[in-house]
Amino acid sequence: MNRIKVGVLGATGMVGQNYICLLNNHPWFEINYVAASPNSANKRYEEAVAGRWHMSTPIPDSIRNLIVGDANQISQAQEKCSLVFSAVEMDKAAIAALELEYASNGFAVVSNNSAHRLTDDVPMVIPEVNPHHLDIIPIQRKKRGWDRGLIAVKSNCSIQSYMTPIYALIQAGYEVRRMILSTLQAVSGAGYPGPSSLDMIDNIVPFISGEEEKSELEPLKVLGRIEDGAFVSDTSMKVSAHCNRVPVTHGHTACVSLEFGDSKPDLDEILSIWRGFHAAPQELGLPSAPMDPIIYREEADRPQPRKDRDMDKAMAVVVGRLRKCNVFDIRFIGLHHNTVRGAAGGAILTAELLNAKGYL
Amino acid sequence: MNRIKVGVLGATGMVGQNYICLLNNHPWFEINYVAASPNSANKRYEEAVAGRWHMSTPIPDSIRNLIVGDANQISQAQEKCSLVFSAVEMDKAAIAALELEYASNGFAVVSNNSAHRLTDDVPMVIPEVNPHHLDIIPIQRKKRGWDRGLIAVKSNCSIQSYMTPIYALIQAGYEVRRMILSTLQAVSGAGYPGPSSLDMIDNIVPFISGEEEKSELEPLKVLGRIEDGAFVSDTSMKVSAHCNRVPVTHGHTACVSLEFGDSKPDLDEILSIWRGFHAAPQELGLPSAPMDPIIYREEADRPQPRKDRDMDKAMAVVVGRLRKCNVFDIRFIGLHHNTVRGAAGGAILTAELLNAKGYL
Amino acid sequence: MNRIKVGVLGATGMVGQNYICLLNNHPWFEINYVAASPNSANKRYEEAVAGRWHMSTPIPDSIRNLIVGDANQISQAQEKCSLVFSAVEMDKAAIAALELEYASNGFAVVSNNSAHRLTDDVPMVIPEVNPHHLDIIPIQRKKRGWDRGLIAVKSNCSIQSYMTPIYALIQAGYEVRRMILSTLQAVSGAGYPGPSSLDMIDNIVPFISGEEEKSELEPLKVLGRIEDGAFVSDTSMKVSAHCNRVPVTHGHTACVSLEFGDSKPDLDEILSIWRGFHAAPQELGLPSAPMDPIIYREEADRPQPRKDRDMDKAMAVVVGRLRKCNVFDIRFIGLHHNTVRGAAGGAILTAELLNAKGYL
Amino acid sequence: MNRIKVGVLGATGMVGQNYICLLNNHPWFEINYVAASPNSANKRYEEAVAGRWHMSTPIPDSIRNLIVGDANQISQAQEKCSLVFSAVEMDKAAIAALELEYASNGFAVVSNNSAHRLTDDVPMVIPEVNPHHLDIIPIQRKKRGWDRGLIAVKSNCSIQSYMTPIYALIQAGYEVRRMILSTLQAVSGAGYPGPSSLDMIDNIVPFISGEEEKSELEPLKVLGRIEDGAFVSDTSMKVSAHCNRVPVTHGHTACVSLEFGDSKPDLDEILSIWRGFHAAPQELGLPSAPMDPIIYREEADRPQPRKDRDMDKAMAVVVGRLRKCNVFDIRFIGLHHNTVRGAAGGAILTAELLNAKGYL
Repeated sequence: MNRIKVGVLGATGMVGQNYICLLNNHPWFEINYVAASPNSANKRYEEAVAGRWHMSTPIPDSIRNLIVGDANQISQAQEKCSLVFSAVEMDKAAIAALELEYASNGFAVVSNNSAHRLTDDVPMVIPEVNPHHLDIIPIQRKKRGWDRGLIAVKSNCSIQSYMTPIYALIQAGYEVRRMILSTLQAVSGAGYPGPSSLDMIDNIVPFISGEEEKSELEPLKVLGRIEDGAFVSDTSMKVSAHCNRVPVTHGHTACVSLEFGDSKPDLDEILSIWRGFHAAPQELGLPSAPMDPIIYREEADRPQPRKDRDMDKAMAVVVGRLRKCNVFDIRFIGLHHNTVRGAAGGAILTAELLNAKGYL
Repeated sequence: MNRIKVGVLGATGMVGQNYICLLNNHPWFEINYVAASPNSANKRYEEAVAGRWHMSTPIPDSIRNLIVGDANQISQAQEKCSLVFSAVEMDKAAIAALELEYASNGFAVVSNNSAHRLTDDVPMVIPEVNPHHLDIIPIQRKKRGWDRGLIAVKSNCSIQSYMTPIYALIQAGYEVRRMILSTLQAVSGAGYPGPSSLDMIDNIVPFISGEEEKSELEPLKVLGRIEDGAFVSDTSMKVSAHCNRVPVTHGHTACVSLEFGDSKPDLDEILSIWRGFHAAPQELGLPSAPMDPIIYREEADRPQPRKDRDMDKAMAVVVGRLRKCNVFDIRFIGLHHNTVRGAAGGAILTAELLNAKGYL
Repeated sequence: MNRIKVGVLGATGMVGQNYICLLNNHPWFEINYVAASPNSANKRYEEAVAGRWHMSTPIPDSIRNLIVGDANQISQAQEKCSLVFSAVEMDKAAIAALELEYASNGFAVVSNNSAHRLTDDVPMVIPEVNPHHLDIIPIQRKKRGWDRGLIAVKSNCSIQSYMTPIYALIQAGYEVRRMILSTLQAVSGAGYPGPSSLDMIDNIVPFISGEEEKSELEPLKVLGRIEDGAFVSDTSMKVSAHCNRVPVTHGHTACVSLEFGDSKPDLDEILSIWRGFHAAPQELGLPSAPMDPIIYREEADRPQPRKDRDMDKAMAVVVGRLRKCNVFDIRFIGLHHNTVRGAAGGAILTAELLNAKGYL
Repeated sequence: MNRIKVGVLGATGMVGQNYICLLNNHPWFEINYVAASPNSANKRYEEAVAGRWHMSTPIPDSIRNLIVGDANQISQAQEKCSLVFSAVEMDKAAIAALELEYASNGFAVVSNNSAHRLTDDVPMVIPEVNPHHLDIIPIQRKKRGWDRGLIAVKSNCSIQSYMTPIYALIQAGYEVRRMILSTLQAVSGAGYPGPSSLDMIDNIVPFISGEEEKSELEPLKVLGRIEDGAFVSDTSMKVSAHCNRVPVTHGHTACVSLEFGDSKPDLDEILSIWRGFHAAPQELGLPSAPMDPIIYREEADRPQPRKDRDMDKAMAVVVGRLRKCNVFDIRFIGLHHNTVRGAAGGAILTAELLNAKGYL
């Protein structure tokens, strides 16, 4: 079978390493190019990550000896791949420009970075929630004069603990008006080295720079619509997020209180909506799609990050403790694996969706 | 100087050990009696806690050789003390009965236990918030036919991270209508051994049995009034609490979103109210009172439990991150030391207040 | 294919749960019976472990509805299985008697417990080190008048971090005379709940009851020989072990300093011995055998428990930092997964070896 | 009283911050100058450490507004202080040169850095072990043509968990021939940010760069003698150290196995030597000296870092688990607070000793 050749930009960082593991033996995609900063360029991949390979499985043999390219030199990617996963770590403006340049050179760009999340013709996709947002691609291409190139991005990782279960309710006809939530986020969300162990032993940090702002804005675009060739955010929902860093390696947890509009589902109906929820990734049989995108745990004290983050290839959102809220209508706990579902795995699922929809 | 002789019931447990350390060299109180379960009775205190002394300072010399009494035998306390701090761990109904019996035998009982928190003639006191609730004592004595005995209790530890700053705003004339909050609570809140390390390494647990219910009910009594000789809760405020256990030894953190009534202070005014707040413990110069009951940290990422829990003898509430809430009016982070301010230290402060008011 | 029917005694505990996961879809063995204490007896397995299932995968469907037997009632196991894995938690003498009774009733007993480790006709087996010790089975049967029954046990988990690499050197002809080592052991080694989180946050405990004694005695039996129908320990090697508990969920690490006899291999030779080492489990192709029983990590700072414990199905010993010792001859770091390789997985490998050798 | 004016070089780093807290209200020394890298120079101290003050007490008022100097500009220190505590973080050769230059300009330099530890006329002092090494100062001054300047350094922090108890035995007449030890070291030993939380959650790292080498060399100089105006190391003792990083904030633990020379004390005698041990700091009544430099804990599972590191102002070495070694003669556990006793506190004690001996 002919697999699509892909590149990973920022391949030596932690998200890059996740791509390399998750794409190993992928049925549709084949890594044929890895790139990073000029420091790493021209080294064999194995050398470039010596002393900082963080995955629990070894570097795949097919990647070990690839020569690392310079992510800033787009010409180096030519002929090697047609899609690039972007996980570069640079100044935000520089990333925004670089990703545009890759796209204008004909590459499909699927990015983990926040640089283009609010660009009005760039889809920010959670594949189970707004797969139809990818339908802006023809408009994006036309507007920007691109032939085959495209840009699609994923949202901030932390909102993925709750956006799928909330969307399932919206899709079932229940307006969500207001939402107050607190997150307990894993340290891997900050990359490596990320938080100092001196801040994470016998401690939590009730602050993550920029995270609350993203958590309050991005859901509105994800739930938005395309109008006149651009995304218009849904402003009917208000979100307030408290974001905390906790001593957990992987797995973001969210404590969510929701207020519905006038029509309010009861708890049994919500459970039944969540249990029955399936979306494009499941219907299209995408290789990285979880079988059930929302898994509900019955136990009083679940989900918990170490015990539940790996459910269904670490691609499911795990939900629990659905109960009445004493102030709003309902509350619940959501959890997802932030470096898989929330980062590389989510981007790969988006790329699979792009492929299934014929955009690659 | 003549110090008041006190006893500690449940002296071998973790809260009991805290009492013993905090009352060492206390200017007003002197431990003259320690009691625990029948298992520990008749042993020297040092023997009774062998292998389970958890404090960072050694057992005070004055306590080391005290013979432990049986907490169930009230006669053993007679002649030895006139006030008992109750930190016994038994069945809740048994504690409720035992505390009443101590009081009817003439002892002042100050309790950490939840058994009498909702008893309608028992004051549940946060000394900076509702010191006037102690004025029910004459009514309590009269109603129950007690001569010198009394019962006063402290509230659940976790609400102390935010009740003092909220009360300061209420006292300044701002109604608080609704509040949604999430706590990140230390493991010591569950006593020893408490949570298993297997649940607290690379993990958090989004559930603490009974804690959300207490957090939603107790503030209403603390803010309530005395009517016809009994406490009537304030039902004008609605609270919704998500309670989480996190891998922190001591120090409960709360992420609080507040909705005011029609009159809304701006952020500067709130800061100024908090900074100027002083209450009975400060005015009366109680020995265990923090100098400033509310300490505001300016840094973007504070308060943090390991770094801030010990401020002002571990008796202050440390607050930070005051900012607009995207859904309600404001939000902030509150923190306090749960085994000092929230347990033994808070109860000692209540006893000091009882003494200053002439009830001992 | 006809799989051998097996039972798990102590099936509700943590080691029991590991058996249930590891034996799921096992090619040779099929769980047909689970037993536990009288408390759990007569419940469905799922009910019996409600609230204390600690594995990251769900209860296998084939086990969920099994009715739990009473491990003390041997008759309940009859007809249901011919081999039992024993992970009961009781008084040691009671376990010793119970295991003998199962064996005398015709069951093959493979035990994780320490009760029979030093019984002189019971083999204590690390399958890569002393597979030939199983050849005492005919003697054991004859001596005890058993027809088909047998008992084989595994050693203490912590010695498995270093016994295989040390044995590889001994087998290559190098006497090991003295060994001083320190372990950093995971909390799961103590079962659930095990160490309190109050002892494992910002702390280590330099003591594990009974562990140093086992670590100093058991290697001598593992390296011993059969003489006159009984095991005789090798007393030519002296071991001194410091055992520490550290805040790690799974994975015991050992820092080992070794003194050889007169003939001393150089570092390159040792590496080459370790890399080439294969033993009975590999040669016989046992289903649970790691491909390479000793994996050497080249990096300066490996092995590390979270990153390396899962190598090769969590069944390999991972070694690193081989270097000259400033006092003895060499030193190195060894690591293994204590609840898989060191407990249920190791016992299953022993059972596979028993089967391959025709003793089942 | 006239206090000696001192400066802190590297005042904004973690060790520098410890100096500032420990010297607050010191009876003999008064901080009159703080210096750091050019980045921090000319800022008020409070501004210079904004967002990275790690101490649990606030910046002392006397320091808050000091203008930070440039540590490289020695002239800025002139007139402001006569003694500098050096905790600068730079290239080792640059530090070595800079410290010499301060000394040749008349400053007493007491350094935490390793740059001059092996310089043969620089004393490396553990005040309870080799206070007489300071008597090289007149030789040092003469040889280098310094009038009032001097350099004295402290040893690597980790060896302080065991050097005092070992020296007490040597002083009592027992030769220590060989020693194999493993350390479990706190993350603060690496400064801030130090180890990533991703390496310290559910993990340990069995490697600290350069630490084993220092641990094997430095004890020999500390136990050495002055000969022909230079230090000659004691080469009669052999040390082998395994150094591990563990998830503990403060407090290094060591597991030590010792072999004596021909004369061997029994365990009771060792306990009695340790309990009776006092040295120059105690005899001279130095302000920072612990009352008992060696504290022995009787409990089976102590010392433990979180529970014992703060004993006696965090300046004592806490020892426990003395027992026979199965290979050498004895073994025990040692613990000390690495950022107080092992860093700033130890250096201040050395400066106090210099003052008591008349070298300031």
